[in-house]
Amino acid sequence: MRIQNLSTALLTLSLGTVNAFSPVAITSRQSTSFALNMAETALTQDELKKMVGYKAVDDYVKSGMVVGLGTGSTAYFAVERVGNLLKSGELKDIVCIPTSERTKEQALSLDIPLVTLDTHSKLDVAIDGADEVDPSLNLVKGGGGALLREKMVEVMADKFIVIVDESKLCDGLGPGFPIPVEITPFCHEHTMRQVAALDSCAGCKPVLRMGSSSSNQPDGDDIAVTDNGNYIVDLHFEEAIKDARKMALDIKAVVGVVDHGLFCDMSTAVIIAGKDGISVKK
Amino acid sequence: MRIQNLSTALLTLSLGTVNAFSPVAITSRQSTSFALNMAETALTQDELKKMVGYKAVDDYVKSGMVVGLGTGSTAYFAVERVGNLLKSGELKDIVCIPTSERTKEQALSLDIPLVTLDTHSKLDVAIDGADEVDPSLNLVKGGGGALLREKMVEVMADKFIVIVDESKLCDGLGPGFPIPVEITPFCHEHTMRQVAALDSCAGCKPVLRMGSSSSNQPDGDDIAVTDNGNYIVDLHFEEAIKDARKMALDIKAVVGVVDHGLFCDMSTAVIIAGKDGISVKK
Repeated sequence: MRIQNLSTALLTLSLGTVNAFSPVAITSRQSTSFALNMAETALTQDELKKMVGYKAVDDYVKSGMVVGLGTGSTAYFAVERVGNLLKSGELKDIVCIPTSERTKEQALSLDIPLVTLDTHSKLDVAIDGADEVDPSLNLVKGGGGALLREKMVEVMADKFIVIVDESKLCDGLGPGFPIPVEITPFCHEHTMRQVAALDSCAGCKPVLRMGSSSSNQPDGDDIAVTDNGNYIVDLHFEEAIKDARKMALDIKAVVGVVDHGLFCDMSTAVIIAGKDGISVKK
Repeated sequence: MRIQNLSTALLTLSLGTVNAFSPVAITSRQSTSFALNMAETALTQDELKKMVGYKAVDDYVKSGMVVGLGTGSTAYFAVERVGNLLKSGELKDIVCIPTSERTKEQALSLDIPLVTLDTHSKLDVAIDGADEVDPSLNLVKGGGGALLREKMVEVMADKFIVIVDESKLCDGLGPGFPIPVEITPFCHEHTMRQVAALDSCAGCKPVLRMGSSSSNQPDGDDIAVTDNGNYIVDLHFEEAIKDARKMALDIKAVVGVVDHGLFCDMSTAVIIAGKDGISVKK
């Protein structure tokens, strides 16, 4: 069925108001559910997210794999695609590891078989969104507060596929999105100061995340608490971070830091939805 | 008063059944409360602990300082000494930072003014025991499960004074005392495997700490939980760890690890009580 729709999809899929189909190979499974009848129609943000979510699954998930499922509005569509392909029988013998309770619920609702890192430490592929992507494919993640579980899963994947819209691309990490750092609650003000005082964090303004959830959209006067019982400090930068790799190592080494949202040297490929079509950076 | 007692202390203080007074300089405040009338009397373990606890305070704590107070049966006596000297007026304007709830309670009972790292990030001195000390003065700490708070405080001290009896000295860390690693509960079995799989941890046997407290003396069938809501994995070694510094960096870098009980390059001096007297290694 996917094969049958391929030519239709290739002919009709258009991004923006001009034919902006990118030269990137689109597999048979690509975007069939929404590609029809869209020629000359601007795609919504959700449609773009769906496109990259579906493409990541179509290109990288094969039967028999252990798959990491990300969290967020873009990863949502990758999870949906896995569920659909399992249901249709086009994918078989998949087990998946969700990176959050939210993703776990969505996967269960789609009858996706779930396992955990405790039983499956090695993943064939993980697919997730990102809050910012630099030219070296280093990422900032953790706007949603799930950075630790996401990193635990994704660092174990043979291939880590990142799916974003082009607004997430940047020349340098930092100014576009604060770097979240997960810290233990005990003497957290001290730990915040220690992180901010690192040479590699020069110029940052540390802000303790507030809110009843750990999302970085504050919705309360309480300190936000992660799934792991920790706090989040968002490091705000006005200028691009000079050396994200060094900063990543330095922050993690601070006593009281659990982990952080810099994902360096982890991405295998970044699939980008933009007004000029889908592109892939490796 | 301390000055007046000096000569008495120097004349009568004896460790073991022979005159084993070490060449280490003993200050006027040293051990006056128990040094009298002890010549030719073997000291108990507690008396040895008291001796090094008191010496650490007498040698390193001055009026006006910010002082870190350790946790455990040896640090107990250092806390006691600070309390006594504050009460007698020989120390003034001290504020202290306790490394555990237990030490906090002891300090409060002695009217020792307490602050936290949140208000005082910089300490003049910290005094604490250790579970093992190697020839480079690298330590293993955390048998009592308080390693994270201890490390947070002690890493901020200008001088970190370690007080032990000589049974804690070793040629190489590892075989004498397992290395505790504090990890997040989420997928802890996976994290245990990741730590044990590090090259620098080769040969270790990781054991999840059980018990109703986080002490490494199991007293229950539940997983022990630290003050910070985390688990402890004890890494057991049969042979001495080759490179404790590298192992320390490698373990901390694992996603899911909060911190560990290797305290490398932190000790200013180790004060040792033994059958041949008190000695100090710097």
